[in-house]
Amino acid sequence: MTNIIIYNNESKAQWIVDELKNKNPIFVCVIANTETGKIKGISAAGQFPEVTDYTPPADVEYVLFGKPSCIPFIPVTPEGIPTPAIITKVSLSLANIPMIVVDGGLKVKPAIPFITIGGEPGNDIRTGRAAQNVAEVIKRAQILGQTLSKFSDYLVIGESIAGGTTTALGVLSAMGIDAKNRVSSSMPNNPHDLKIKTVEEGMKSAGINFGDLKDEAVKAIEILGDPMLPALSGTAIGFAEEKPVILAGGTQMAAALAVINSLEPNVLENVAIGTTKWIIQDKTADLKGLVNQIKNIPVLAANLDFSKSRFGGLKAYENGAVKEGVGAGGAAIAAMLKTGIDSAEINKAVEKEYERLMSLK
Amino acid sequence: MTNIIIYNNESKAQWIVDELKNKNPIFVCVIANTETGKIKGISAAGQFPEVTDYTPPADVEYVLFGKPSCIPFIPVTPEGIPTPAIITKVSLSLANIPMIVVDGGLKVKPAIPFITIGGEPGNDIRTGRAAQNVAEVIKRAQILGQTLSKFSDYLVIGESIAGGTTTALGVLSAMGIDAKNRVSSSMPNNPHDLKIKTVEEGMKSAGINFGDLKDEAVKAIEILGDPMLPALSGTAIGFAEEKPVILAGGTQMAAALAVINSLEPNVLENVAIGTTKWIIQDKTADLKGLVNQIKNIPVLAANLDFSKSRFGGLKAYENGAVKEGVGAGGAAIAAMLKTGIDSAEINKAVEKEYERLMSLK
Repeated sequence: MTNIIIYNNESKAQWIVDELKNKNPIFVCVIANTETGKIKGISAAGQFPEVTDYTPPADVEYVLFGKPSCIPFIPVTPEGIPTPAIITKVSLSLANIPMIVVDGGLKVKPAIPFITIGGEPGNDIRTGRAAQNVAEVIKRAQILGQTLSKFSDYLVIGESIAGGTTTALGVLSAMGIDAKNRVSSSMPNNPHDLKIKTVEEGMKSAGINFGDLKDEAVKAIEILGDPMLPALSGTAIGFAEEKPVILAGGTQMAAALAVINSLEPNVLENVAIGTTKWIIQDKTADLKGLVNQIKNIPVLAANLDFSKSRFGGLKAYENGAVKEGVGAGGAAIAAMLKTGIDSAEINKAVEKEYERLMSLK
Repeated sequence: MTNIIIYNNESKAQWIVDELKNKNPIFVCVIANTETGKIKGISAAGQFPEVTDYTPPADVEYVLFGKPSCIPFIPVTPEGIPTPAIITKVSLSLANIPMIVVDGGLKVKPAIPFITIGGEPGNDIRTGRAAQNVAEVIKRAQILGQTLSKFSDYLVIGESIAGGTTTALGVLSAMGIDAKNRVSSSMPNNPHDLKIKTVEEGMKSAGINFGDLKDEAVKAIEILGDPMLPALSGTAIGFAEEKPVILAGGTQMAAALAVINSLEPNVLENVAIGTTKWIIQDKTADLKGLVNQIKNIPVLAANLDFSKSRFGGLKAYENGAVKEGVGAGGAAIAAMLKTGIDSAEINKAVEKEYERLMSLK
């Protein structure tokens, strides 16, 4: 069975897979908040709006400690569906890949070491004033990426932020990339109309139209983005100046790609997207269609499969729940490349970890 | 000429020097503030008390950018004496050693990426309530050290905090180590009496006596220490569980040694002190006498020499000004071990960097 699905720019993608085999990656997770994630119906995490402030720190605490410290419950929905961080945790652990956490702009800080680069929590993009301090965060993140490139062979960089596909739609639209009905969702029923309406309100508030900020990534983020994007894009740029970078996520990474392409297009030689099978199988979204409007970079997908799971909470991934997040797909790819384990071993380890996690309930 | 002076535990020190040759270190600088540094006459940095809040961030910004961003002047005293970060900067740059900055507890944050581990700025130790959140910071720092040990062969960890030798005297005294007249100073005239009086006031406020906290490092720091110590000691412990650590500094590192020895004595197998010639030549202090009351670990010293400098500001180092700080000695040792350059090359590069720095004035 295929462990890593090659999904875009096949020849270069295959070259990257060969090149990174047995190499030592570093995993970075950028965590941040945006009030956009609290809009009713926009995010699975936003079902209980006040919880979205805790989701990102809980995710990274869980990866590191095996349970969150900032919330008194496990990162599993009432229906038993676990955070995608379960895949990240298992993958990093199987391959002994270290994680560094970056605070893109948080309301609640995690109880673990994290890197501060001057970001602030994001506003509701309907205001047209989504994020602050964007240029400065990108600059500091770039320094961080340059520093990290001295420690490891390549970077896998993921995110945890609720509402991130809506802000991705915002940034992509401002930059002239047709992303309507193309961004993914953590829910089986992708609320495209609500996302589009939210972005349109933000555009109206800021007095801009589709494509007005084609070459102004910083402004696009300030108006319609979120604090994760400058931190992630800047870190990727700094690292990719020297060594390969895997943007680990779904359609949000198309927004990061647009930002990087606008600021430092040359580094894209060193950039690919790593995601999960569930993203590229998502009929409600179109990652390839987004990527190829920007730059024909490779897209890889971890061929994970929870259909045989004993647990409904994991099977739900096969029916469109969650799909990706916390760099799950990229972490799984990196674990397979580093150690030679196959995707079935990751499925199995996730199954075991889910059982452990539920026993903490 | 000797490049690295072997000063304590000669056989093990020589073994370490051989072992670390051509290896890849990581340099960590822990920066923090304590109000203790603002006591009149206690610190060279405290000549202008309000400036001590800016000294640590300015030091690391200078190392990274070549000039501070948080202050509008260069890190050189009115007499032209430069920060010891000039040695750190030159050494890291010559050997391409990456720096990671840790916020131990800062009033002013640097405009560069830094790691947050929950520390708060420290109080005047005369209150007997010197530092907060000490146990938690040690715990998070330990995780940080464990993570960093995956990236590099050994750790060189230094500090920048004004007033640090007084808080070192406080912690050492509380833990029953006779440090009176043994801690060093950044000034040629070491104000021992003032330091002793300050510590005695703190002890009185907290109702403790010399040696009362022999096995209670956390409490000793809470009462008489500073926020740099838990961050530095914890990081060193986490890293030294796996790989060698050089505590880069003067007599403050004896306090870190006492803390580590109290919390995780086993890791001391992997710990040495790296400092400068000026510290071991300091007639007003006694690093060896401190270390050997705690644990006979190796002490190495970079044999730097500014006596032939064209600049009075550098020559001042030969007359007892500054001596050490910002991990200068350890950084110089690491640069020599990594690249094979000799101490004369570092002297020369410092001379050139001083000229550049003064031209920015």
